[in-house]
Amino acid sequence: MEKTYIFGHKSPDTDTITSSLVMCELEKQLGNENAVACKLGNINKETEYVLNYLKINEPELIESLDDESNVILVDHNSPSESIDNLEKLNIKKIVDHHKIAIETSYPLFYRAEPVGCTQTILFKLFNENNIEINEKIATLMLSAIISDTLLLKSPTTTQDDKDAVAKLAEISGVDYEKYGLEMLKAGTDLSGFSIDEILSLDAKQIDFKNVKSIVNQVNTASISDVLEMKDELEKGIEKIIEEEDLDLFMLLITDIVNSNSQVIVLGKEADLVEKAYGVELEDNTALLEGVVSRKKQVVPIMTKNA
Amino acid sequence: MEKTYIFGHKSPDTDTITSSLVMCELEKQLGNENAVACKLGNINKETEYVLNYLKINEPELIESLDDESNVILVDHNSPSESIDNLEKLNIKKIVDHHKIAIETSYPLFYRAEPVGCTQTILFKLFNENNIEINEKIATLMLSAIISDTLLLKSPTTTQDDKDAVAKLAEISGVDYEKYGLEMLKAGTDLSGFSIDEILSLDAKQIDFKNVKSIVNQVNTASISDVLEMKDELEKGIEKIIEEEDLDLFMLLITDIVNSNSQVIVLGKEADLVEKAYGVELEDNTALLEGVVSRKKQVVPIMTKNA
Repeated sequence: MEKTYIFGHKSPDTDTITSSLVMCELEKQLGNENAVACKLGNINKETEYVLNYLKINEPELIESLDDESNVILVDHNSPSESIDNLEKLNIKKIVDHHKIAIETSYPLFYRAEPVGCTQTILFKLFNENNIEINEKIATLMLSAIISDTLLLKSPTTTQDDKDAVAKLAEISGVDYEKYGLEMLKAGTDLSGFSIDEILSLDAKQIDFKNVKSIVNQVNTASISDVLEMKDELEKGIEKIIEEEDLDLFMLLITDIVNSNSQVIVLGKEADLVEKAYGVELEDNTALLEGVVSRKKQVVPIMTKNA
Repeated sequence: MEKTYIFGHKSPDTDTITSSLVMCELEKQLGNENAVACKLGNINKETEYVLNYLKINEPELIESLDDESNVILVDHNSPSESIDNLEKLNIKKIVDHHKIAIETSYPLFYRAEPVGCTQTILFKLFNENNIEINEKIATLMLSAIISDTLLLKSPTTTQDDKDAVAKLAEISGVDYEKYGLEMLKAGTDLSGFSIDEILSLDAKQIDFKNVKSIVNQVNTASISDVLEMKDELEKGIEKIIEEEDLDLFMLLITDIVNSNSQVIVLGKEADLVEKAYGVELEDNTALLEGVVSRKKQVVPIMTKNA
């Protein structure tokens, strides 16, 4: 029988990878035995920590699919963040927590909710379909919610995310605060990454009105450790700005313990950051107090001031 | 507190009107006491039959809403079928069974499934939220599913629609085949409508690749009765083609008893219909055997041959 390929966005994070695994389990439980969990790129160290902890294999890496293949999208819907020939594929389902950025020529199953994490929706789907959530699935769900909401501290966190975490901690028996901090710290380990890799790990191209920008986010337990690479990071950013013809590049270095971000800003529209946050850039950088969410605390504020 | 306006598409049909009423009930049960069922246009005779049967008032007619009003869309998502300033409104939720045709700048609750009727999804939402479906709600749901699937005979019908009808007939105590045929027949009553009104009752602008078209559908229990108006209908169609600069106008006269459609075709691309269905138009008309669904039996076939 035909396979159904399940995958999240490019530059996969913990929500994208675990959601492909959990959605695959849901599909199998619903009778779709040909569901395959996939990924569109290499996993990061945070996700590696989760899969090692659970002794689970990574999803299958796919670089291309034949036209008209059956697919399920998780944790994204925008074609720009998906596989290249998406418009020629047969999208069976979408489960996501982002804005709607796709058009289709046919009706399909689309389940989106404005919650902090895709797994919070998958948690509901398991319950609605009366499918048992075992310890492994619970830990996968828990890991993604902790990752996306930075231990429920990000302003993207909703009551549904909190309720899911409480229930999933119970099922999995995991001390989620202790486990979560270890997991997030594993994700901050930048050793072994080149400057170019660090600058693309979680980079999103976002245009603030006409200001063509990339906003990249790197989590850390110590901002000063990352700032030791500041000169090399700036050189790398300058190169990307030139290659991509950008007006602005923001590198958010987010302190996951204290919930602040140090931002490095380059590009001819750098003063937009000063205007938006009422800060003064010194040596291309400033501390944005309390800012941890690109979606809630960067995109709307930058767009409004652009 | 701020109101939440719930409405379906322009040129409302039974699914659109009953879904706004049922979604409003769901919202209230979920704690949103400021939900208001609305409509964007006058109801048709089929829907009038349903509301009279249940002694329920029509939803509130709205022609415009202030920017940033809270809204919930049912049975549609395309801005072209919705209220004019949709892009300036705050869409809280969408429940629909059509293709995805909207982009948003924010995440929202989006629930779509490729089933025959929006009410089949609302039926699931009531169950998932453990909210009791009373006799009135069950009859509203049942009416819409019968309407959209022509008594479960249209090729748009899915197993989920059939399961919902079986359960809803049980809850409501309605003999759904008898009731359904009466309801559908009420909808075929064209008395009191001008030619212009008949031609816009259920008209959708659909472009088959570059062929700018309108496909209008009128249900009937007797094709020959409708064909008595053929000359006047053709004059009206000619006028619309000129005003809207169309390449093609298809009027499907659908026999709800025998599940066929007589089509009247005008416009410079009329031969596309001959090619798509292997028929010969005589006096601008032909019988399309077994064709009852615009979504499944017109749009894909016409698009493929365009």
